[in-house]
Amino acid sequence: MTCARYDVIGIGNAIVDIIGRCDESFLAKIGAPKASMRLIDADEIKKIYAAMGPTVEISGGSAANTIAGIASFGGKGAFIGTVADDEFGRIFTHDIRSIGVAFTAPAISNDAPTSRSLILVTPDGERTMNTFLGVSTKLGERQIDLELIRESSVLYLEGYLFDEPEAKHAFRLALKTAKDLGRKVALTLSDGFCVDRHREEFLTLIRSGIDILFANETEIKSLYQTESFDLAADLARKDAALAVLTRSGKGSLIFASDRAIPISPEPVPEVVDTTGAGDLYAAGFLYGYSRGMSLEVCGRLASLAASEIISHIGARPDIPLVEFAQQKGVIFDL
Amino acid sequence: MTCARYDVIGIGNAIVDIIGRCDESFLAKIGAPKASMRLIDADEIKKIYAAMGPTVEISGGSAANTIAGIASFGGKGAFIGTVADDEFGRIFTHDIRSIGVAFTAPAISNDAPTSRSLILVTPDGERTMNTFLGVSTKLGERQIDLELIRESSVLYLEGYLFDEPEAKHAFRLALKTAKDLGRKVALTLSDGFCVDRHREEFLTLIRSGIDILFANETEIKSLYQTESFDLAADLARKDAALAVLTRSGKGSLIFASDRAIPISPEPVPEVVDTTGAGDLYAAGFLYGYSRGMSLEVCGRLASLAASEIISHIGARPDIPLVEFAQQKGVIFDL
Repeated sequence: MTCARYDVIGIGNAIVDIIGRCDESFLAKIGAPKASMRLIDADEIKKIYAAMGPTVEISGGSAANTIAGIASFGGKGAFIGTVADDEFGRIFTHDIRSIGVAFTAPAISNDAPTSRSLILVTPDGERTMNTFLGVSTKLGERQIDLELIRESSVLYLEGYLFDEPEAKHAFRLALKTAKDLGRKVALTLSDGFCVDRHREEFLTLIRSGIDILFANETEIKSLYQTESFDLAADLARKDAALAVLTRSGKGSLIFASDRAIPISPEPVPEVVDTTGAGDLYAAGFLYGYSRGMSLEVCGRLASLAASEIISHIGARPDIPLVEFAQQKGVIFDL
Repeated sequence: MTCARYDVIGIGNAIVDIIGRCDESFLAKIGAPKASMRLIDADEIKKIYAAMGPTVEISGGSAANTIAGIASFGGKGAFIGTVADDEFGRIFTHDIRSIGVAFTAPAISNDAPTSRSLILVTPDGERTMNTFLGVSTKLGERQIDLELIRESSVLYLEGYLFDEPEAKHAFRLALKTAKDLGRKVALTLSDGFCVDRHREEFLTLIRSGIDILFANETEIKSLYQTESFDLAADLARKDAALAVLTRSGKGSLIFASDRAIPISPEPVPEVVDTTGAGDLYAAGFLYGYSRGMSLEVCGRLASLAASEIISHIGARPDIPLVEFAQQKGVIFDL
């Protein structure tokens, strides 16, 4: 891989998570489909927040979590996303910069507040997200720092951004910029309902040059409109050079053109909060990949990072992932 | 005890905690005395925050944590403290009301932002607090809801408020209101340096009718200016009807006029973050006390609550304390 200043640059929604516990009946009451992400408006977020129990506020955002995870492994990350000049914008900016990630996008001070997601965690540890996209929807081509993209080995795109028309143009610009320099491009499908909303556009994007596709079982089956995981996987490996498919507790599968590599899940004492599991899986994989490690090691790092994140509240690592991976003997302290 | 609408009403600083990990050298660099609370100004909070790693935002405030703990046991709590009409003010208000605590003080929209504390947690789990008192300093007599105090079995006062001249008058008004109705009044000394700053006033307050005095070893030795814990304890039991003295890992002691009851600490697998240990100890004690339980049971509930809070990040309970105490067989599910 050509020498680059950053290992991975992510483009995604800049979000602060507002995380609280609830029981199943609360999800039913507010009409939130369990384990998915739905978009809500300013009125709804007020109503749900008022009905929620006590919460904890932690920086989030899918691609931002992934980049934070890569930084926690010791990788060099960059992030593009928009925040407002408000308290949550300052929290998001502080948290991502404090771990050494390049986050150069200026705060947008007017229009809308910083995006936030009310995350409801049920007793089984599953998370259900209710996201209010404030200033995130303002992400467009002008926010795309082309120099930053040129300087990154891998460009990582968050599927959630497809819910915003302007962001699609930004995606295509970023993709073209990266491909022109021979950089690798990765995409995560983000959410089953998100795939439902943008299936054709996702397929077009993937076929136009996505090198690494991340998806979970629900998402990949939704993309190819099939009930068969095996069939969906077969189609995915034809469309992307690498298809990395996660199956929660059943582990994951990495499909290269010539082989399929099964990855075992890392056991955890207790699943406390699944928020960020997929994001951190991608972090481990992309950290290894951008450093030229074997696909087996990439998968192992992915599983380790996911296991760390689901064992506590929040989608940002609580311990340095580099130390965790060293303890587990997957990477070595030079 | 006379029938009352609330078990305990607390008066204290309404604070949102901004919690992050650091090593010992960081404390030295910013000149923060380990394990204590120091007041910082708007410039300092900006500087320290900029230098800190990623953080988590969780409602805090010493007396507020205690009242939240009492609510978590199933007790009826009320709280008086001031917040601004800003994001942190909304977070604080939401979190305390969402657990059923009466928090009737209106937001103060001008002047100063909601108070916040940068809490640095070292690898040993010890917390060091750097507090910016914003609108908290505006707490005065006019914020004291006399009706709420009359309706509460126990009035609980946070020593930290002594750093604010106006708040002292508010304290005295609250104390008189409670005593006139024969209610019980409890005080926590909060912090060793805080005791240093206000020793004489604390002694006058205690001798004017504090029924329950909470202090840790450092605080009580500072109050009586002695290096001997035993001597300090002897003096404390003369000044307050009940002196409840905590000694971290060594457990605690409850001194009544006629006896001393040693309370063992509840073992924890790992001390993750000591923030709120004293606050939740007081919560367990006051919950039992306000319900007429024996001092032994009060002490046991206190230890249990403290053990829950130090096993995770943040000073608000992560699980319902009533269930935790039931599991441990200290109280019973009716």
